Amino acid sequence: MKYLHAMVRVTDLDASLDFYCNKLGLKELSRKDVPQGRYTLAFLAAPGGEDAQVELTFNWDPENYGEGRNFGHLAYEVEDIYATCQRLLDKGVTINRPPRDGRMAFVRSPDNISIELLQSGDAKPPAEPWASMPNTGKW
Amino acid sequence: MKYLHAMVRVTDLDASLDFYCNKLGLKELSRKDVPQGRYTLAFLAAPGGEDAQVELTFNWDPENYGEGRNFGHLAYEVEDIYATCQRLLDKGVTINRPPRDGRMAFVRSPDNISIELLQSGDAKPPAEPWASMPNTGKW
Repeated sequence: MKYLHAMVRVTDLDASLDFYCNKLGLKELSRKDVPQGRYTLAFLAAPGGEDAQVELTFNWDPENYGEGRNFGHLAYEVEDIYATCQRLLDKGVTINRPPRDGRMAFVRSPDNISIELLQSGDAKPPAEPWASMPNTGKW
Repeated sequence: MKYLHAMVRVTDLDASLDFYCNKLGLKELSRKDVPQGRYTLAFLAAPGGEDAQVELTFNWDPENYGEGRNFGHLAYEVEDIYATCQRLLDKGVTINRPPRDGRMAFVRSPDNISIELLQSGDAKPPAEPWASMPNTGKW
């Protein structure tokens, strides 16, 4: 038994690829259009971590996906949580839970999937602008 | 950047551990009670695949978690999809989408997290009781 992926549904494939790849830093591994089912699948993963993927399902016919609390988040370890959050911030992503503790941050995808970012190894020393940045919304 | 886990919230920790471990076949790696936050975390993974975990969050104060369509499912590859589905069935789990094609099945956790099971390698030849088993509910 082997973990393969987490599937999330996306309402705008381009916006989601922009978020997960250009902003968050995942890599698109493959994409498949299925015209008979009117959907497109895209498989993403952290560079070098192709064993644990995220599958984006884009249904061509719009639907309101909503969100539930039974699913919590997807978590990734990053080498420098401040650099990652700065990159996301510079690209217009709201840091819902800034890494005030030098250890943990949360952002959300365009379809409100929570993404947890965790500093690899020890927490970094508290630093501005993060240390005094308030929470925004929920995550 | 490295994938760590998917977090799901559970309303009954024992029922969820029974589902994910005793029935589905994941292994509990660690558990942490946090009385000051009134929650318990349990980390699970497929045996031998500790790099991709599932984090169960059990909040001690009950809440209705609901479900959304933005999160789709968690997917695992299995060596024998018929044997896996038979074990789940024998333990009382509804096979929402039976592996009629010898390749793919879906079940749901006690909190309605969809789990996709995929046959490793080539699909198995169609076989009863799966080939003629109808879908049950949604997944």
